[in-house]
Amino acid sequence: MSINMNLNCPIPISKYDKVMLAHGGGGKLSNQLIQKMFISEFDNSMINAMHDGAIFEVNKGRLAFSTDSFVVQPIFFPGGNIGELAVNGTVNDIACCGAVPKYLSLSFIIEEGLPMVDLWKIVQSIKLAAIEANVKIVTGDTKVVDKGKGDKIFINTSGIGVIENNINISPTNCKAGDLIIVNGNIADHGIAIMSSRQGLEFETTIESDTAPLNGLIQDILNVSKNIRVLRDPTRGGLSSALNEIAQSSNLGIEIYENQLPILEEVKGACEILGLDPLYIANEGKVLVFVPKEEADKVLSVMKAHKYGKNSAIIGKLCNEHPKMLRMKTTIGSTRIVDMISGEQLPRIC
Amino acid sequence: MSINMNLNCPIPISKYDKVMLAHGGGGKLSNQLIQKMFISEFDNSMINAMHDGAIFEVNKGRLAFSTDSFVVQPIFFPGGNIGELAVNGTVNDIACCGAVPKYLSLSFIIEEGLPMVDLWKIVQSIKLAAIEANVKIVTGDTKVVDKGKGDKIFINTSGIGVIENNINISPTNCKAGDLIIVNGNIADHGIAIMSSRQGLEFETTIESDTAPLNGLIQDILNVSKNIRVLRDPTRGGLSSALNEIAQSSNLGIEIYENQLPILEEVKGACEILGLDPLYIANEGKVLVFVPKEEADKVLSVMKAHKYGKNSAIIGKLCNEHPKMLRMKTTIGSTRIVDMISGEQLPRIC
Repeated sequence: MSINMNLNCPIPISKYDKVMLAHGGGGKLSNQLIQKMFISEFDNSMINAMHDGAIFEVNKGRLAFSTDSFVVQPIFFPGGNIGELAVNGTVNDIACCGAVPKYLSLSFIIEEGLPMVDLWKIVQSIKLAAIEANVKIVTGDTKVVDKGKGDKIFINTSGIGVIENNINISPTNCKAGDLIIVNGNIADHGIAIMSSRQGLEFETTIESDTAPLNGLIQDILNVSKNIRVLRDPTRGGLSSALNEIAQSSNLGIEIYENQLPILEEVKGACEILGLDPLYIANEGKVLVFVPKEEADKVLSVMKAHKYGKNSAIIGKLCNEHPKMLRMKTTIGSTRIVDMISGEQLPRIC
Repeated sequence: MSINMNLNCPIPISKYDKVMLAHGGGGKLSNQLIQKMFISEFDNSMINAMHDGAIFEVNKGRLAFSTDSFVVQPIFFPGGNIGELAVNGTVNDIACCGAVPKYLSLSFIIEEGLPMVDLWKIVQSIKLAAIEANVKIVTGDTKVVDKGKGDKIFINTSGIGVIENNINISPTNCKAGDLIIVNGNIADHGIAIMSSRQGLEFETTIESDTAPLNGLIQDILNVSKNIRVLRDPTRGGLSSALNEIAQSSNLGIEIYENQLPILEEVKGACEILGLDPLYIANEGKVLVFVPKEEADKVLSVMKAHKYGKNSAIIGKLCNEHPKMLRMKTTIGSTRIVDMISGEQLPRIC
């Protein structure tokens, strides 16, 4: 997301250039931070009420509720920062339940000494991401921990979405023959984080793919009532997400290496670093499991969306090798792709 | 809460005696931890579905939604631990909105190296606290940060509650003459944390008052439809909570020192430490603002509840000194009690 950052920080930087313990103490400085930086920026009737929680009306029906804590390091990285990542991450989890995301909570754990202007940039980014995803930040919390007991800032977002029709998204609905579509290039986020940590330089900067996918997913659900599963392949990459679906659907999954959309630079970075892009995290990708006969129309609405231009059918569900993920490689062999066993890249999100 | 701890940790301690980065990596070890330690313990249809979020039905009406991150240090303290504190804290915030808490999310940020058995104790404590408060843990997240970048464990809980009738809890409903009731001894939590950090010893151990207040609050709402405000005086203690209400109601608040319920040991500890109990955090207390004519019946249901035995009327709202909190002291003078300006005791919750 390109941000025209408003740097007019509402907290007097001359007096408080860094976040102090008292900003989380529940007294005057907490109150000032919450009022001037958070409530005035996220401005809506629910957060303005300053209750212990937000109160809102719902209709009879189904809700989706999700939570995610973000500990990404560095907090500012090519293509984004921890603020928009925290909004998009929870928005995408809710959307993957088949719901329209509506309300987010926002909870900060700040390390004493974080530059106030960094907090302000993050808040601005959260605000813009919430506007793009059409969600409201309705309640929050701020804690400050002593220097050396955190790492700049951790953010939790939890969110509520409304399931607006009879959609039933579940791996148990999967059938052999269903196709798997991804909405674009894989492994961008993980490689962007790794490059920025290690100071790797490529011809072009590899940027995180962080994006809100609720609009794209709504377009998909509008053209097909038979979507089996939606899953965002974040930590653990495609391999974890696909292995989980294989296990819970009790079917095999076959994917085709030559159909995986991936940037040349990312492929190159993976080769240099000795990494398999199937294990690398994504933050703006969704795997869509769809009956074969509906795949074309789903693919075409996906390609028409700004976050789906490089969508591709990458594989299918099958009766063979149940609970296992196999890949047909570009050289014609087939290999098992297991779930990652160690920790490839900590603090990716 | 007294816990008969089941120490049969489901993760093989011989192999994984400490939490490792890979337990948050989204691969096999993450999967094992989530399946064996979290899902099997919190066991309910929503969390078992292992979606990106929980899905549940609601009726038309109003919901309350709240979030809190817990960074208390130490994580085990007299009278409780960070696990039950995290459940009770969010349960109480939702109950203070006038709602019946139903669903909680649970998000861990664990520092690499946390003893696995400590995590297991915390999970057991969360499970028991959720049972007592009659809420379900329906969705979650686990992150692990590198050693030195966190402090053992931070926990976020967010929660959803249902407002079951026409209750309208808001400081703007307050009227001069309304009385203020607290459900028991103040300042226990803060003094328990401080004593345990500083190795202070008193004749009896001062224990945290952490408790779920939703049952007590439901009893109150059952006998009075005219409760003005419910507020749990946590960080910043009574002074912050009462000052906030004074400001948002545009009325003055007067309290009486000789009516404040407080343990002798806590009073003594405050004197030794040079602290004002009005600024000390509570974790199982609620301030109830009620019309004068309903105060007696509210007080009597509160005293009948196990978490309200020492309930007392401690003050009133008035037209004088709007937006200010004043206290009549035991020696007969009156003093202004301002909101705390610095940070008295970091990481109390």
